[in-house]
Amino acid sequence: MSQLNQESNQSHFTLDENAMFFECAYSCDNALFLQLEERAFFITDSRYTQEARENIKPKDGKSVEVIETSDLVSKALELIQKSSVKKLFFDPNFVNLQTYKRLESVINGKVILEGIVNYHRQKRIIKTSHELELLKKSQALNVEAFDNFAKYVKTIFGQEKSLSECFLQHKVKDFLTRDGLYNLSFEPILAFNANASKPHALPSAKDFLNNEDSFLLDMGIKYERYCSDRTRTAFFDSKNFNFQKEQTFKDKEHQKIYDIVKKAQENAITNIRAGMTGKEADNLARKVIEEQGYGKYFTHSTGHGIGLDIHELPFISPRSETILEEGMVFSIEPGIYIPGFFGVRIEDLVVIKNSKAEVI
Amino acid sequence: MSQLNQESNQSHFTLDENAMFFECAYSCDNALFLQLEERAFFITDSRYTQEARENIKPKDGKSVEVIETSDLVSKALELIQKSSVKKLFFDPNFVNLQTYKRLESVINGKVILEGIVNYHRQKRIIKTSHELELLKKSQALNVEAFDNFAKYVKTIFGQEKSLSECFLQHKVKDFLTRDGLYNLSFEPILAFNANASKPHALPSAKDFLNNEDSFLLDMGIKYERYCSDRTRTAFFDSKNFNFQKEQTFKDKEHQKIYDIVKKAQENAITNIRAGMTGKEADNLARKVIEEQGYGKYFTHSTGHGIGLDIHELPFISPRSETILEEGMVFSIEPGIYIPGFFGVRIEDLVVIKNSKAEVI
Repeated sequence: MSQLNQESNQSHFTLDENAMFFECAYSCDNALFLQLEERAFFITDSRYTQEARENIKPKDGKSVEVIETSDLVSKALELIQKSSVKKLFFDPNFVNLQTYKRLESVINGKVILEGIVNYHRQKRIIKTSHELELLKKSQALNVEAFDNFAKYVKTIFGQEKSLSECFLQHKVKDFLTRDGLYNLSFEPILAFNANASKPHALPSAKDFLNNEDSFLLDMGIKYERYCSDRTRTAFFDSKNFNFQKEQTFKDKEHQKIYDIVKKAQENAITNIRAGMTGKEADNLARKVIEEQGYGKYFTHSTGHGIGLDIHELPFISPRSETILEEGMVFSIEPGIYIPGFFGVRIEDLVVIKNSKAEVI
Repeated sequence: MSQLNQESNQSHFTLDENAMFFECAYSCDNALFLQLEERAFFITDSRYTQEARENIKPKDGKSVEVIETSDLVSKALELIQKSSVKKLFFDPNFVNLQTYKRLESVINGKVILEGIVNYHRQKRIIKTSHELELLKKSQALNVEAFDNFAKYVKTIFGQEKSLSECFLQHKVKDFLTRDGLYNLSFEPILAFNANASKPHALPSAKDFLNNEDSFLLDMGIKYERYCSDRTRTAFFDSKNFNFQKEQTFKDKEHQKIYDIVKKAQENAITNIRAGMTGKEADNLARKVIEEQGYGKYFTHSTGHGIGLDIHELPFISPRSETILEEGMVFSIEPGIYIPGFFGVRIEDLVVIKNSKAEVI
């Protein structure tokens, strides 16, 4: 994918909100962004045309024409047919078969519809300094929410009522969103004890917080549309509860597992270098866990790129051949999940800067 | 679409969570449900296989085999190739081009992949009595949340701080979800005054509630996965604020518009009959608004089916040829939206029962 030559005048289209936002600083849930060589079009319905005209800021000073229609695909076809474009790129993971067939049946070979997986995400793989600032601000707000939420949990524990995962997962959104000012980057994952052994645990209404529980929290917000993401696994002690990375568990096996995950994460963060592949970066964390005999309990990738999408390029996985470059931003989040017993994940975001990984 | 003969042994597949939940009472965010004549398969990854085995309850007492894999499409292909199936149905709006191409390139004409728009939604268009009970319960919880929220707004108005749309849109979720016990069926729409003239308004952090404002609230929850949906437009008066359908606005033009929308909604609810088309039902509301000269400000359909999806069949729109039948459940929600001035929408859910529309 990194070899794809994406020139700024390459013709392409997208129906994905984040991809179109990246092109013109505006999106809505019913629009098609179409670039035909030098000309770009934001095709949407009457609910959004006014907002679109007010908010669109195209890249490189090029203009984007806002077009109102009740049928996005018909309008796009009309514009494509009027143009002299020979090839149109798109991401086949973001176009459903029905839409593709409507385009294809009319274009009928006269324009090549070239589906490239990750076509639009590839454009966003290196963050600009402005994007990096937004990601840092997003994560700073997220970190602050972890701290404020820990204080809140200490305060209400034993005071008000039994604290279920469901209840706390709902309440943490007050802290994350500042009572509705920011959007979530995803539904927070909040799990106690063995529930945390499911990496994507849903909160339970029946499991209540007790002293000496383990407490996993994975969450993030969007700041000017840029996502944050962070996970901590903490030992719950109503006197000294916090989401710092240093944690002391009462159970020795828990502590051992926690320390392995922490060491795995630190090993990756310390030793990642520009020029490595995603696979090599993944292995920096994975080998620590494998050497301790817990390899089969680390069931997911070490990390994922982050930006407008919560999961984007580069992937830090055992199969990723992507070369890590200056300006890429991604998570480092190894974990150990032992079903029915215990789950730990520790996650931070890093940017490749001066050829190394710097936590943001 | 109603003509499609969907036999229970028809082979089909889906990657859509609600479609697979309808088939087997379980879903997760990475699974492929595949029915091959008499046999059904729930293909998912190791994170979900345990939960799947515990929760799957197939229709008609047929068994569903849970299959663990890291690559859903490969595994599905393997099963399809081993079977003697000749034709496999799917909904092309719910399958992306990349997935389709992977299937097609291997199957290569040996099995016909038959894309039918709304294939899975069509199966759910008539609700069973059990589904209807869940929808009623969902809407009852929703109505209760409207009332509790109105009391809350009256209590804190002027007491705590300025109440922005953002803040109230966040707080209403406490009432809707009962502090996290239920999920939302969609992000609540909450808008004051002219902001309500955008049918899909996003809440503003800068617009604060004042006495004599108009206050639009459109929201719903999921109860055992079944969605509710209701809209009220109210006159805000910190003494007598409520979300009843009877509202008195201070501004005469506001009252006039409100009364037209109310009459349009009542005309539809009173006169809908089984055997009508969706188009005819739409017109029962639309003609009232058109006769009063506001036709061009009623910019959306009169209603939509509701169930596992917030929007499903039947559509009550000027283009809908669907015949309304006993057991269909849908919204009736006419509106008038005058940009920069005022917006009104009133929405309830109805079921076709004894050939008429009954509000649930």
